[in-house]
Amino acid sequence: MRLLVLNCNTSLAMTQAIGAAAQAVAGPGTTIVAARPAWGPDTVEGFYESYISAAAGLDYLTGLAGGFDAVILAGFGEYGREGARQLLDVPVVDITEAAVMAALLLGRKYGVVTTPAGAIGQIEDSLLTAGLDRRCAGVVAGDLPMADQGAGPELLAAAVAGLAQDLLDAGADVIVLGCAGFSDLVQPVAAKLGVPVIDGVAAAVTLAEGLVRLGQTTSKVGAYAPPAAGKARPGWPVSAGWGEGASR
Amino acid sequence: MRLLVLNCNTSLAMTQAIGAAAQAVAGPGTTIVAARPAWGPDTVEGFYESYISAAAGLDYLTGLAGGFDAVILAGFGEYGREGARQLLDVPVVDITEAAVMAALLLGRKYGVVTTPAGAIGQIEDSLLTAGLDRRCAGVVAGDLPMADQGAGPELLAAAVAGLAQDLLDAGADVIVLGCAGFSDLVQPVAAKLGVPVIDGVAAAVTLAEGLVRLGQTTSKVGAYAPPAAGKARPGWPVSAGWGEGASR
Amino acid sequence: MRLLVLNCNTSLAMTQAIGAAAQAVAGPGTTIVAARPAWGPDTVEGFYESYISAAAGLDYLTGLAGGFDAVILAGFGEYGREGARQLLDVPVVDITEAAVMAALLLGRKYGVVTTPAGAIGQIEDSLLTAGLDRRCAGVVAGDLPMADQGAGPELLAAAVAGLAQDLLDAGADVIVLGCAGFSDLVQPVAAKLGVPVIDGVAAAVTLAEGLVRLGQTTSKVGAYAPPAAGKARPGWPVSAGWGEGASR
Amino acid sequence: MRLLVLNCNTSLAMTQAIGAAAQAVAGPGTTIVAARPAWGPDTVEGFYESYISAAAGLDYLTGLAGGFDAVILAGFGEYGREGARQLLDVPVVDITEAAVMAALLLGRKYGVVTTPAGAIGQIEDSLLTAGLDRRCAGVVAGDLPMADQGAGPELLAAAVAGLAQDLLDAGADVIVLGCAGFSDLVQPVAAKLGVPVIDGVAAAVTLAEGLVRLGQTTSKVGAYAPPAAGKARPGWPVSAGWGEGASR
Amino acid sequence: MRLLVLNCNTSLAMTQAIGAAAQAVAGPGTTIVAARPAWGPDTVEGFYESYISAAAGLDYLTGLAGGFDAVILAGFGEYGREGARQLLDVPVVDITEAAVMAALLLGRKYGVVTTPAGAIGQIEDSLLTAGLDRRCAGVVAGDLPMADQGAGPELLAAAVAGLAQDLLDAGADVIVLGCAGFSDLVQPVAAKLGVPVIDGVAAAVTLAEGLVRLGQTTSKVGAYAPPAAGKARPGWPVSAGWGEGASR
Amino acid sequence: MRLLVLNCNTSLAMTQAIGAAAQAVAGPGTTIVAARPAWGPDTVEGFYESYISAAAGLDYLTGLAGGFDAVILAGFGEYGREGARQLLDVPVVDITEAAVMAALLLGRKYGVVTTPAGAIGQIEDSLLTAGLDRRCAGVVAGDLPMADQGAGPELLAAAVAGLAQDLLDAGADVIVLGCAGFSDLVQPVAAKLGVPVIDGVAAAVTLAEGLVRLGQTTSKVGAYAPPAAGKARPGWPVSAGWGEGASR
Repeated sequence: MRLLVLNCNTSLAMTQAIGAAAQAVAGPGTTIVAARPAWGPDTVEGFYESYISAAAGLDYLTGLAGGFDAVILAGFGEYGREGARQLLDVPVVDITEAAVMAALLLGRKYGVVTTPAGAIGQIEDSLLTAGLDRRCAGVVAGDLPMADQGAGPELLAAAVAGLAQDLLDAGADVIVLGCAGFSDLVQPVAAKLGVPVIDGVAAAVTLAEGLVRLGQTTSKVGAYAPPAAGKARPGWPVSAGWGEGASR
Repeated sequence: MRLLVLNCNTSLAMTQAIGAAAQAVAGPGTTIVAARPAWGPDTVEGFYESYISAAAGLDYLTGLAGGFDAVILAGFGEYGREGARQLLDVPVVDITEAAVMAALLLGRKYGVVTTPAGAIGQIEDSLLTAGLDRRCAGVVAGDLPMADQGAGPELLAAAVAGLAQDLLDAGADVIVLGCAGFSDLVQPVAAKLGVPVIDGVAAAVTLAEGLVRLGQTTSKVGAYAPPAAGKARPGWPVSAGWGEGASR
Repeated sequence: MRLLVLNCNTSLAMTQAIGAAAQAVAGPGTTIVAARPAWGPDTVEGFYESYISAAAGLDYLTGLAGGFDAVILAGFGEYGREGARQLLDVPVVDITEAAVMAALLLGRKYGVVTTPAGAIGQIEDSLLTAGLDRRCAGVVAGDLPMADQGAGPELLAAAVAGLAQDLLDAGADVIVLGCAGFSDLVQPVAAKLGVPVIDGVAAAVTLAEGLVRLGQTTSKVGAYAPPAAGKARPGWPVSAGWGEGASR
Repeated sequence: MRLLVLNCNTSLAMTQAIGAAAQAVAGPGTTIVAARPAWGPDTVEGFYESYISAAAGLDYLTGLAGGFDAVILAGFGEYGREGARQLLDVPVVDITEAAVMAALLLGRKYGVVTTPAGAIGQIEDSLLTAGLDRRCAGVVAGDLPMADQGAGPELLAAAVAGLAQDLLDAGADVIVLGCAGFSDLVQPVAAKLGVPVIDGVAAAVTLAEGLVRLGQTTSKVGAYAPPAAGKARPGWPVSAGWGEGASR
Repeated sequence: MRLLVLNCNTSLAMTQAIGAAAQAVAGPGTTIVAARPAWGPDTVEGFYESYISAAAGLDYLTGLAGGFDAVILAGFGEYGREGARQLLDVPVVDITEAAVMAALLLGRKYGVVTTPAGAIGQIEDSLLTAGLDRRCAGVVAGDLPMADQGAGPELLAAAVAGLAQDLLDAGADVIVLGCAGFSDLVQPVAAKLGVPVIDGVAAAVTLAEGLVRLGQTTSKVGAYAPPAAGKARPGWPVSAGWGEGASR
Repeated sequence: MRLLVLNCNTSLAMTQAIGAAAQAVAGPGTTIVAARPAWGPDTVEGFYESYISAAAGLDYLTGLAGGFDAVILAGFGEYGREGARQLLDVPVVDITEAAVMAALLLGRKYGVVTTPAGAIGQIEDSLLTAGLDRRCAGVVAGDLPMADQGAGPELLAAAVAGLAQDLLDAGADVIVLGCAGFSDLVQPVAAKLGVPVIDGVAAAVTLAEGLVRLGQTTSKVGAYAPPAAGKARPGWPVSAGWGEGASR
């Protein structure tokens, strides 16, 4: 099967890293295609940028001619999933939901570590509307030494583990990494903390594969009924540089 | 003072109607400027279109050079308010919140009448993240004879009142009109039902005027801290026809 | 228009201060009449006194011959608002609700600073029954140096700001002043904290003006249907000193 | 032990009936003293009257010289319990809470039948602030043929059972009688419905006896700390006819 | 009347202690019979053991030939109550619910002290499904010096009071002892803290007596309808040592 | 990998059917071993039987010598999952959670169809403690023509679809089959209703495979820390017929 993993920002490096993380856990018959919107912010760090990236992501998905069995939205706590579910028939798996679902199966309370602080509100709202907030012990954030800024994974893992300790103290027994680009941190943070650590991209790949194998598609009755005829291309501005969005 | 009322869709007629409704309740010293996004859907009827309109609205707001004392987001249940609050210093009043706040002051439980059925999910999510859902007796929708399709206000009012009766039966004692274009229905629906009927545009004008008079501005600590320098113009595509968005 | 601002206690000084705070933000055509109950406690600091003050306030309102376009209940977290809404046709704005509504429009989470500790429970219950509790980051109290005990506003502002800091640490980005007599603290506390600070009396004046301008009145269907004929003067004891309740 | 059962209204007949119902279930060593406020409404049918009766009841309790081991507040869904708990050291049992607690021990979901419709809102708020609302299947009301209007118990029981059927259909398996004067209906309504039917007065007597036997008293730390010295007689008006409130 | 108090574990000493605590508060006409399951764990310290003890307790109850007016389940936060309610017609009082109900009548927020840490999750779930969680300020646990390990009551009381202080700091004004074997701690812990301290066994005895006196039995409509004929002895394995379960 | 699918009842036919359903969706390298408890009820239809089956299932799992990569608990809404998670290191997937998680990814609100009516309470409690209840539109039950009673799948599918229609009318857009033995109904019910229909066994297989592929195991910090040494075989009675539990 073919899974589209859509980064929420336009960073090529991040898109490639997400694609690699997804492929690393994909089943033998699964092809991962990592993509990014043709426009929008190169990092998404708050409500404003998240709304822009949601539209840019939907713009990308609107232009798809099909060819994918499921779509993974690889932005933690970002907007857009309900729109993608309305637009598409194939399953749409948000890494926020996927990570939390895995966490709920492995522990009793989960906590989320993210960056920057501006993302906390979005993540809380995303968990609330997803109906997955009741067993959340907290969402914490810090200014982390980002991998794309030269900090080695060890330094970043130590910082994430430090933030996560507050969540464990508050009752969490599973840690969710609240960022699409944290896949490499699963092992080192888990080693430091001694609890399961969940990466949403990896979790989403297995969930998407499962839904495809079950032959399930998105409900088209009610909230996710498709846009009215002629509305799925609603006056987008002419976009330059469209083609460079797809990686791999 | 000057209030910007931003329609969520690109319909000039709807924008003008919203502007007129806002001006009708505005105080003596208040100037209403009604505007619409430069791109995006001409009606917003579901999650997909709402996300597009949120970005288009934020695009419009990003291009503003200031000059307004507050901004009213005139799309009922639509996305974008948190992004606008992050972007702007002046108060941002969402008509969804404004209508519900007025309703909460006038009755014990409110119900929302909207159209079409695809809008119910968005409205429910909007009330949930706004923290205004507890006293909601329900959100109902029907395929209404739309004013912009030639149906007279009397026919539309009768249809809305019919839907609202179910909400009254469920315990509501105030009705919220869940559409920015329903301002003309307040009087006829209230006359039919004998309960307060709230239009969000009108309620938002008085709330925005009040916040401005109090000298209040949006909190810039935490969730609504402004986007990082250079991020408030995040790679938008070149947009044609930009200038035609502002009406009046 | 004429707005009645009803203090919850019998203190003449407090009533005058509340009246002045209300007039300071009132629109050009608005006349504020500040009043106080004819009997009841001179400060309200807990459930017991609040129930007494609620009845005394309703006694005062029952004796009104009309002449007001809206009524503001100027006791933060105090009982009585549902009774006043049942009794009166004109809008009734509780400063608790008004302050929180303003806060919800300006930030993502609000916190309340009050005094004394005995008021916390009432405020929490008031927010719960108002359906405005979801985005509350906390209600804190301390034994503040009270203005009516000779403490200057600067000292009081510093104490309130100190309590508020705990709320900001807990995620609040707007502070609500949980006392009707704190109007003078808005500016100094906001200056210290760098976040919006809301006074309920001021917020209520603008909300009441707005509802009057919209032509709205309290729903008389359901919970707020008026008391049965003959029940709106239910065997009150003869009260001495009635006339001294109205100030200004 | 001696239990004070305080009716919320001034009806002597109702007070005597409540006293008789309480005595009927009281243990061998328990003396029931039924009382009524010296002033206030003779029936309580909504928020307004309930706030008056709360103050009148607290007035009555303030005048007590002690002599009771516990106090039962015999008004279903009425205001005042938190004030009585603040005022008194002995346990205060509200029949609303007592009835629901019994119901929660006997079934999985309870429903409340009350009269008139104006009482629904108060009861819902009372359950919410009591923290006993989660397993409530609904509160329903009808214009019942009242016992004090000459309707025989059979007619009233049939009407109550009719309303209760809607609650059973909604999932309730226990019925709570939402009125202090319904004690005689327990048996006939239970016989008609085949489910447990709970009278709050009776339930409260056994709860109060239990708390007294356990030697427990009301917490005086936090919310129920007593009113400040000199505040427990806060400027009440001179009341005529005070002495006629105590019955039996 | 005769009340069966069923310990959740097989410890004879614990069973006798629970029986003594129950008898100490029982009314003059009440006979307490303390019992224990014929098999299962000798202490219950987590989900796994709790599920075993629930079945063992239901096994014991299935073998009863009647003769009791009510059953008390003396395991704090343990599984099984819904099953016992389905099996039996007489009232079933869980000490978890009983303790919290007493606490809710005596204060505004309660906290639970338990041991060991593994019990927190069960207690939280038990409160949640009981619908009694809203006014819970927290559940805390520590490795306490257990009475059955030789620690004197003074040492244990000091440890429990130390844990409880965190709950008081978090807003609790009543402490619930979250263990069936803590009856002796009520007085010393209350003396140290100055707030009501509740033992579930004692509270349950008075609640059970009350329900019996009211003539109430468990609802047999809906969730607690009895198991189908032939299902109340569902293939239990042959059990050795059955007879030693009943004490006193 | 090897997955143990543990039926909650002792029916060999049901166990074989569940095993076949699981194998049908399992990936190429996955071996399904279907098993049943050695004792306990042959169908589980309410709280009482569910508690027995939980213990019997945990008895079975306690006797395992390892050899499985994950365990699936194939009883919809049944007790036991927290105990299994405490006992085992490998992931434990409850079909209740698995079905709902799939439903949440495919629609906005789900409804559950089950049988018999006695199962509704358990399912509601299971969803509540799982933290997956917010987007549930309802749980409905009927006396279905059971497959094991000779009714053909078409008849059963029609009955299930009839019940499900009420859920769709209440806002559900995905249907969850609330019984482990309904795997064959997915296609016919989906065909009748035009919405996704989810079988928990199938969903659980893909979730379990995913967690194993991710290398995740159950958290052993906090609530699911293993039972104390010597407690994982807590005085079980001698059980006959142990060996017949494993099918295939």
